[in-house]
Amino acid sequence: MTAEATATVPGHVTAFFSPVWRDDPERTGARGAGLTVTDGVRVTAQRAGGRGLTLNGEVGEVEAVDRVLGALDADVRLVAETTLPIGAGFGVSGALALGSALATNAVLAGDRTENTLVSIAHRADVEAGTGLGDVVAQARGGLPIRLAPGGPGHGILDGIPATCRLEYRSFGDIDTASLITGDVEAITAAGDRAMERLLDSPSVPGLFEAARRFAADTELLTPRVREAIRAVDGTGEEAAMAMLGDTVIATGNGLSAAGYDATATRTHPGGATLEME
Amino acid sequence: MTAEATATVPGHVTAFFSPVWRDDPERTGARGAGLTVTDGVRVTAQRAGGRGLTLNGEVGEVEAVDRVLGALDADVRLVAETTLPIGAGFGVSGALALGSALATNAVLAGDRTENTLVSIAHRADVEAGTGLGDVVAQARGGLPIRLAPGGPGHGILDGIPATCRLEYRSFGDIDTASLITGDVEAITAAGDRAMERLLDSPSVPGLFEAARRFAADTELLTPRVREAIRAVDGTGEEAAMAMLGDTVIATGNGLSAAGYDATATRTHPGGATLEME
Repeated sequence: MTAEATATVPGHVTAFFSPVWRDDPERTGARGAGLTVTDGVRVTAQRAGGRGLTLNGEVGEVEAVDRVLGALDADVRLVAETTLPIGAGFGVSGALALGSALATNAVLAGDRTENTLVSIAHRADVEAGTGLGDVVAQARGGLPIRLAPGGPGHGILDGIPATCRLEYRSFGDIDTASLITGDVEAITAAGDRAMERLLDSPSVPGLFEAARRFAADTELLTPRVREAIRAVDGTGEEAAMAMLGDTVIATGNGLSAAGYDATATRTHPGGATLEME
Repeated sequence: MTAEATATVPGHVTAFFSPVWRDDPERTGARGAGLTVTDGVRVTAQRAGGRGLTLNGEVGEVEAVDRVLGALDADVRLVAETTLPIGAGFGVSGALALGSALATNAVLAGDRTENTLVSIAHRADVEAGTGLGDVVAQARGGLPIRLAPGGPGHGILDGIPATCRLEYRSFGDIDTASLITGDVEAITAAGDRAMERLLDSPSVPGLFEAARRFAADTELLTPRVREAIRAVDGTGEEAAMAMLGDTVIATGNGLSAAGYDATATRTHPGGATLEME
């Protein structure tokens, strides 16, 4: 056994979604689609030091991570770092849960497979109320389409075959929970229409078009994101809202070309991994 | 539409397998496990120039690639390059099929999802008789466990949560087809035992141990690979035979430490991808 192990997990921006709640958290999740990005979360598990989590140097309490450590019955020290904004629609809680599961299993030379670790992290994120589909998307990478909701063995994943440069700009956080529980029927119907549209045109422009229509149909669009999407429209690039955050994401240099101070990233090629020892 | 698009696909070394043939090629495949490696195949599809394939600069005919172009009804010029040895157990035919499917769909702005493109490449490799499980493993990356055989929608994949340095040495090619059709019952039984062992210990050492027992049980081990595995045994690293090639693969610097002239590589983090335009 090594003294520590590190996992890296991409951020995940949801373009549109239809939430599905069931009694079993592993069957709970969301249909939908989105983009994983190379900006993500890096989690190191250390055997010495007792149970605890620091995020960007600050001692933190993240329910999804506590639930992962409970499921693995593990007392490890977790050191997490991210350049992503928190609570802005990048699935940081899911990334922390998945990174903690992978790094903890590795440092303890555990006997879980990848699907089992993804299941544990998905369940933890669902039970904590912090995510419905980020974990399975972050495990996969690329531009994930969640055809059926849930963890491994229940959910069905596909993907848009593409790779692209991206930019994002976050204007702050919004209260995810209150929004999702607001008008679930309208969100579900809009998410299902967006999925139909996307599957007719499973491409980057098709994804952004489906995302913009979903945002308009559900009235989830924030004023600042609406303004940014309009501004990017004149640049020839695509833009859409990150669900659910007060965040806009665009292809290429769409946001900087429209005059925004934006962070450059790109689609993540392959999902969460352990780093080489 | 762009003038060309490029896909990169990892090599795949099978550690053990149980072949499963069914009437439907998409349900045909193999249970088993293995390693994807960063040494792989790069395929560029060009819209101009008419249908044709060059591999490492030589005009070639690869049945699996022809079948992919037929399924996509596409006349593109394919330029493929690989540093991997051909016919040595790295799944180069599967990588060519999958890379051709991804690059061709991209250059023609096609409307296939990733699962559909993987299905087309899997079917092509099976129908050409050149592979049973390489394509789905190469699409996934990492250390794939194929729990159930077949393409997307039929096969079930899991993975060993690990990342490691590797070395390989190929001593030449062997006739895959004659071996697989030799004693299928014995191979299937040995493959199923190896899967049980691996799932008890889904780790890199567990994979290599299962692979060595499978090779011994099936009498597929070649004299030169047997000798190399014995030599690596004294170095503290793991070694096993690539199924099916006269090729040995080892963890870390096992082969060079044992005095072999070997090629260094590592596990591939995330499977086949399109390159950025």
